[in-house]
Amino acid sequence: MYFEIVSQCIASLRNVELWLDKAEQHASAKRFDVGVLLTSRLAPDMHGLLYQVQSACDYVKAGAGWLSGEAPPKHADNEQGIDELRSRLRKTIAFAEAITEEQFAGASARKIALPWAPGKALAGEDYLLQAIVPNVYFHLTMAYAILRHNGVDLGKMDFLGSIRWAMP
Amino acid sequence: MYFEIVSQCIASLRNVELWLDKAEQHASAKRFDVGVLLTSRLAPDMHGLLYQVQSACDYVKAGAGWLSGEAPPKHADNEQGIDELRSRLRKTIAFAEAITEEQFAGASARKIALPWAPGKALAGEDYLLQAIVPNVYFHLTMAYAILRHNGVDLGKMDFLGSIRWAMP
Repeated sequence: MYFEIVSQCIASLRNVELWLDKAEQHASAKRFDVGVLLTSRLAPDMHGLLYQVQSACDYVKAGAGWLSGEAPPKHADNEQGIDELRSRLRKTIAFAEAITEEQFAGASARKIALPWAPGKALAGEDYLLQAIVPNVYFHLTMAYAILRHNGVDLGKMDFLGSIRWAMP
Repeated sequence: MYFEIVSQCIASLRNVELWLDKAEQHASAKRFDVGVLLTSRLAPDMHGLLYQVQSACDYVKAGAGWLSGEAPPKHADNEQGIDELRSRLRKTIAFAEAITEEQFAGASARKIALPWAPGKALAGEDYLLQAIVPNVYFHLTMAYAILRHNGVDLGKMDFLGSIRWAMP
């Protein structure tokens, strides 16, 4: 299920573009610079919206790359505005969705390091389930929370995105 | 990987007890009733902490139950205080962790309904990846965000919990 799990993380990340559209509409309606939202944070010692989206991107990129044996591209955290943040999302998604199901064949046998835990590594499955999935959804939810806290008109279905119903 | 994914959701839910401990310590140090935190929310039209934890519990319970073919127990949302919320966590975890790997054998062939989408159903894999996992982490992260926003001393490792390192 490596491919399916990573694919769902990509789908969840894709929803952020709609959130940014709604953020822009909100800023425009209230006549403030949308950049204010990009630096908004929920506590002084937490990161702001821009970082939350960058970080969600990086976990998707890392999970897709390292589990498929392809070194993920480096993306500098130098986005200044909302359009650059959209580009970051798009290049992350383009990289991750280009990886085929077959490329994940050896995922469970891999040992993968985390940049913030030097000298340690995780087995492929633990890397995916203990590091990638929780972090992807942590940073996505935090981005959503910052926007909701600031009045942007988002709803739960904007978080979940489209659902693949089996019936009717 | 159904069993492993559900197990990781249970492990993530288990971290909440530590967050509640830290919430109590914070309330005690600042001399306010911890119940204030339980009803805190990030926006007037969002749910408070108590609901976020109940909801995370319910998605773990539903995922573990329906995917293993065992109807999950009904838990009324009638918790009044932090100790009752701890009980809710514990009975949820006790139910979910009692389900064995073998019981998930038929998970992918199941069709599962969501209470908020009458007349529709999801295939087992989509139910797990599109509904359970995103919702579990959404509500856990929102609970964490509410606590952090209110000054509770939590860190990212309190969210991730213990990591099963493969080396050294």
